Order: sequence, then structure tokens, then C-alpha cells
Amino acid sequence: MERGPPGSSRPTEPGPCLSGQRGADQAASASLQSAARARPGRHPLAVAAVLPAGGCGERMGVPTPKQFCPILGRPLISYTLQALERVCWIKDIVVAVTGENMEVMKSIIQKYQHKRISLVEAGVTRHRSIFNGLKALAEDQLNCKLSKPEIVIIHDAVRPFVEEDILLKVVTAAKEHGCSDCDLEFGTECLQLALKYCCTKAKLVEGSPDLWKVTYKRDLYAAESIIKERISQEICVVTDTKEDNKHVSHLLEEVLKSELNHVKVTSEALCHAGRDLQKIILDQCYNFVCVNVMTSDFQETQKLLSMLEESNLSILYPVVVVSVHFLDFKLVPPSQKMENLMLIRECAKEVKKRNIWLCGLLISYPQDEQKLQESLREGAIIIASLIKERNSGLIGQLLIA
Amino acid sequence: MERGPPGSSRPTEPGPCLSGQRGADQAASASLQSAARARPGRHPLAVAAVLPAGGCGERMGVPTPKQFCPILGRPLISYTLQALERVCWIKDIVVAVTGENMEVMKSIIQKYQHKRISLVEAGVTRHRSIFNGLKALAEDQLNCKLSKPEIVIIHDAVRPFVEEDILLKVVTAAKEHGCSDCDLEFGTECLQLALKYCCTKAKLVEGSPDLWKVTYKRDLYAAESIIKERISQEICVVTDTKEDNKHVSHLLEEVLKSELNHVKVTSEALCHAGRDLQKIILDQCYNFVCVNVMTSDFQETQKLLSMLEESNLSILYPVVVVSVHFLDFKLVPPSQKMENLMLIRECAKEVKKRNIWLCGLLISYPQDEQKLQESLREGAIIIASLIKERNSGLIGQLLIA
Repeated sequence: MERGPPGSSRPTEPGPCLSGQRGADQAASASLQSAARARPGRHPLAVAAVLPAGGCGERMGVPTPKQFCPILGRPLISYTLQALERVCWIKDIVVAVTGENMEVMKSIIQKYQHKRISLVEAGVTRHRSIFNGLKALAEDQLNCKLSKPEIVIIHDAVRPFVEEDILLKVVTAAKEHGCSDCDLEFGTECLQLALKYCCTKAKLVEGSPDLWKVTYKRDLYAAESIIKERISQEICVVTDTKEDNKHVSHLLEEVLKSELNHVKVTSEALCHAGRDLQKIILDQCYNFVCVNVMTSDFQETQKLLSMLEESNLSILYPVVVVSVHFLDFKLVPPSQKMENLMLIRECAKEVKKRNIWLCGLLISYPQDEQKLQESLREGAIIIASLIKERNSGLIGQLLIA
Repeated sequence: MERGPPGSSRPTEPGPCLSGQRGADQAASASLQSAARARPGRHPLAVAAVLPAGGCGERMGVPTPKQFCPILGRPLISYTLQALERVCWIKDIVVAVTGENMEVMKSIIQKYQHKRISLVEAGVTRHRSIFNGLKALAEDQLNCKLSKPEIVIIHDAVRPFVEEDILLKVVTAAKEHGCSDCDLEFGTECLQLALKYCCTKAKLVEGSPDLWKVTYKRDLYAAESIIKERISQEICVVTDTKEDNKHVSHLLEEVLKSELNHVKVTSEALCHAGRDLQKIILDQCYNFVCVNVMTSDFQETQKLLSMLEESNLSILYPVVVVSVHFLDFKLVPPSQKMENLMLIRECAKEVKKRNIWLCGLLISYPQDEQKLQESLREGAIIIASLIKERNSGLIGQLLIA
């Protein structure tokens, strides 16, 4: 059994996580969580997960096994690992991969800084792979790094959208119904076989529609769209503190709010060493609209880019930065824009290496209030489409509203 | 029963159709087709289709019933109708919709020029809706416009990717096994019920993975991606006949071919009243890259746009036109580009009304051969992403490679 590298801190998953519960309907889930984490008077339940990932994905119609197919540049299995990792009470995650994919899997663990992952060799069938994973957990002869679990979750590597609440239901059911490790395969035929032939007190736990398995090429398309939607839920408008600039960025913020109904639009200043902005980055906002004061430079954008590069935000998802410049077409000669454009292109090439996708946006700033509203609205539509579609072909472009 | 408007000629579906069979494995299909179209010594089989479309789409999580959800701006049900329409041996298509959606459905038929469609009111259940459709076909008391069919295909309105070969298998099975009209519900529980309780000689016909039903929001995402992929299979590079221009457009064509492996790249001239180009349009190519001779105007693009506007190509799918301009940044003052930009923006707004999506692309033309190749490659990547992603937010933009 091989143990992946430990890795430094990096964001885990957009949306609610254990330490930041939002909404009233998660109260029940929270009480279940405490059961999994620590039962009164006893040590916490020891839970591990085994991921069979030895498949070749023949139904996908692509040469790459589906668990390694990229979504926004990152292999599918990394999304599944990320979903399990964020559940802090899952102590160990054992992935079964074929010998030929062992090195690929190691590099994925390293690149995306996955934690608590161990690798075992896959068997010739899915069941053999699961067996190998369970054996590793039971024995761990080599280094005793793994804790012997009381409950093992078997989870397909190609079901990336598993939520903590369903995992909790499974663990709770396993505890109550006393299934043995190897009967616990929710949602598959295995559980039903266990039920029928082994007289195990197995229980079928209802999954959510999101738990679906990536099987065909269309499922990859769907997964990509779901992920794009998830990371486009929040936009942060970043600006300097200068008053006139604040005015126009506030206007843009208002238009973004009214144009993008379902998106949370916040605003942060670059001042005070950007402490509030740091918090936004820590809270995993993946979209930034940076309003620059001067048309001829983009200092504010460069400050923001430095902060983003220092953070680990872009390890898991591409971060979109739209560098916004206002100008009155009547007053500013267009040649200035070209200078800008060249700067943005060069800068975009540089930060793309860090998975930060930079675009420029010139918004016309006419004196007429109504015309200004119209160009702000056009700008908001362009910003929305850059963020929602995450089209890597447009990195470094200067768009005009 | 209400009959939709007849409508004028417009394209039906990308990919192979009856009159243009490609590939050897379609020989079997072709012989089946002739059986459906005309049996020797007898009149052709009379086939009709009934589409229950009265559902409310509650699993979708969106307020619009799923059959009316837009994909690239067009309602899902229109894609399903298009798939059935292109099968020339289906004589009548009866759609069952609720009273409140009757007008919406009529406007869809009119806007997308669907043919051979009749409307009936949906029942309270799917079975009632099917019954209403069959009754209309059997009776047609009002106007006797419908031919009484020997075989009726029942097809879900939310399965847009049905292919002719599967429909033929169903029709052939129906003929051979003598199912009655209403037992024929391939792939649903109804057929199995018929089999079990009615002792009907029903037959289960295996469907393709593409036949899947749009049920959840993720299925809409998948459907959109599949449709985008289908209409991005061919790019036509359009150019004038002038020799120097031909040279550079040929270079661009070659780079497009090498960068876009799976895409068919053709080239056509605008000369001779564009007769060859007319054929490309008739053959349903939805992507055009128009190379302009002069940097300061875009006459070639305007000629192409006129031809596209005169055709009905963009009724069903948005047609992407990339207006390409070459210039040596060292020789041409940047202000000229801004003029261009403004022209393209205005023109793009105009043709967008006709579902033609116009973008501009300035490709740097340095004297250095290697640098030229690099900028052509960048241009090809931008063209590919404009065509594949079909991001409506970028209409009218001028991009730079």
C-alpha cells in the first residue's frame, strides 16, 4: 500500500462544509455529524472509504478511463476525492487503481494536494478491487499508518457529487443495521444480493439525484456544467478606496446584482493590506471583477493577482479575474487601450500558469446617465458570460461594452 | 384537433438523413427504410407518431415544464419534433399538450416551421394524453387531414436524440409482432405491462444511449453540450478570390485543420454569386470563418451575412460567423481597428435578430514566418472556442490573436 503526499493547506469544496453550516434544514444533519464524530463516553466512530477506480470506461467512447477524464482541466476522480476529503470524520480514503495508472494517480494526489489518501492495486473486477482496499485497511502490515475502521464506505470513483448528509445516512444505517464492511454498497446491485443471499441486515439508503454516476460522455458534459454553475455562485467586485472610483464600481455592482439574480455579488476594497479580501479568498469565491482607476494602467488588478497567486485558491478550480476599465470614448484616444491590451495579454499568459484566467473589459463611460446604465448592463452581461462559461480560449482578451 | 401552420422550407437536422446515407453499416438500415417507405406490390406503411407532452417537469427544479426549457434559445420539444420530422415515412405527428400551453406550442411550431404536426389536448395522465392522440388519429372527425395509420410510434417529448434507425426497428417489430397501437411504448414500463397482463406479442427493442430522457437539470446541460458538439463538426473558411488573400486564408485553413482534429474544415470562395457556398449552406454547415482582404472594412463578411440572412439556415441553430482581419501591428495604426470594431458591433446587433452570431478576430500578421504561424495558431484556438462554446455574451466583440 502506498501513501500519498500530505500536502499543504488548500480549499476543499465550494458550498457548505462541516465548519460553516448555513440554513435551518441542516440542524438534523448537524446532530448526525456529532454522532459520527464523537459518541458520548466513547471514542469517535472510525470511518474509512474505499474507492474502486480500476475501470477502463469503455462506455464513455473516449480512450481515457472515465475517472481520469478532465473537467475544467482536473481529472474526475480528484472531484470525488475532494468530496470525501471535506468530510472530516472519514479518517482514511483508499483508492484502488490499476498498476499502469498508479503513477498518474500519485501525480493527481500531489498536484491537487489530496490528503488522507492511500493507494492499492486494483483487482480484475470491481469486487476484487474493493477486497484489496478492505484488506489494506484490515491489515496495513507495512506501516500502521491507517486506523482500523469500524465502518467502511464503498464509493464509486465516478460519482463526484456525493454530499456529506448521504454519507452520514449510510454510516448511521451501517451502525444500526450491523452490515459487515463488504455488504455496504449503497445504490448498487451488491446490496440487494447481500440482502437476498446472505441474510445480512442490509438497508437501502436513498441517494439524491446528484449522486448519479458518470457513465457516458454526456455525463461528463453534465458534470462540467454542474461544476461551472457551483463555482459561479459568487462574484466579488474589487476596487481601490478612491471616492470617484468607488462610485462607478458601486454602480457596476448594482447592475451586476440586478442582472444576475441567483449570484451573490459582494464588494471589497484593496486597502488595509486587503484583509477583508483575504477572507473572501479563504471563503472560496472564484470570481473577481477588479475595477481600475486609471485607463492607462491596471495596478489594482495586479495587486489582486498577487494576492490570488499567494493564496492556494486556484489549485482546484480556475479563478476568473475580469479587469475592468472605464473610459469615455470621446475623451480618451483609442491608442491608449491598445497599450493596455498588450499588458493584459502578457499578464494573462503569466497568471494562466497558476490557473488564474484573466480578461480585460473596457466599459464605455458616457456623460449621459441613461447611456452609462446601458453600457454597464452590457458590461454585466459580458462579465456573467465570462464567469459562467469559463471559456479558456478567451484568456487575455480585451472585451468592450 | 388543431393543425399547425405548414411553413416554408428550412433545414432539418445535422448529420446523416434519408437522402444522404454515409457509411457501410447503414446498408441494413437502408433496406429497412425501403420496407417502411414502400412494400413491393402494396402501398407504403402508414406510420404516425404521438408525443405526450403534458408533463410539468417537477423533477427538473425549474418553473418551466422541461419540454419547453430552452437549449441554445430553442425549446427542447422542438428538437424532438425535428428528429421525428426528418423521418419522411412518419406521415403525421400528434402532440398532446395542456390547454394552458396550447398557444406556446402553436408559436413554437410556427417559429421553427415544423411540419406534419397536429395538436390535441393532453389528459390528466401520460396514458390519457396518449389515448387522446390515438383517438385523434383514429377519428379525425374535423377535417380528415390525417391519414389513418397502421402503426403509431409513441415517443416522449423529452427524448430529443431519437435516431431514424431505432424508429425503424420499432416499426418493424410492431409489424412483425402485431402489437396494437397502444402497447407500443418502447423502453417504458407500459410495454412490460402489456407483455405481462395482455399476452400481446410485444417486443422490447433495444435503444441507444442517446435515447435517454431529459429528466433532471443536468440532462438539460448534457443535451445542450451534445447539440453544441453536433453543430460544431464543420467549419467553412470563406474568402474572396484575390490571390494574396487566398494565400493567407489557406494558411489559416491549414492551421484550423491541424488544431481541430475532429472538425471538418472546408473552404469556399464568394465569387460566381457564391454558388458553392450556397451548397455548403444547404448542407447545414453552421460555422463560418470569413477572411477579409482589407483591414479597414469587412465587405466579404457583409456579403456572407447577406447570403446567410437570405437562407433559412439560422432558424433552428445559431450560426456563428467569425469575421477575420489580418494586420501587421507595426504597419497599421491601431485606430483603424477601432473603426472596424464599431462596424462589427453594429452589424452583430443587426444579424443577431436573425440568430446569426457575429464576432470579429484580428490576427497579427508579422513578417516573420514562425511568428505568423504562432498567431495563426492562437487565432485557430479562439475560433474553436467561439464555435464550440457558442457564448452569446461575446456577440459583437473583436478578439485579438
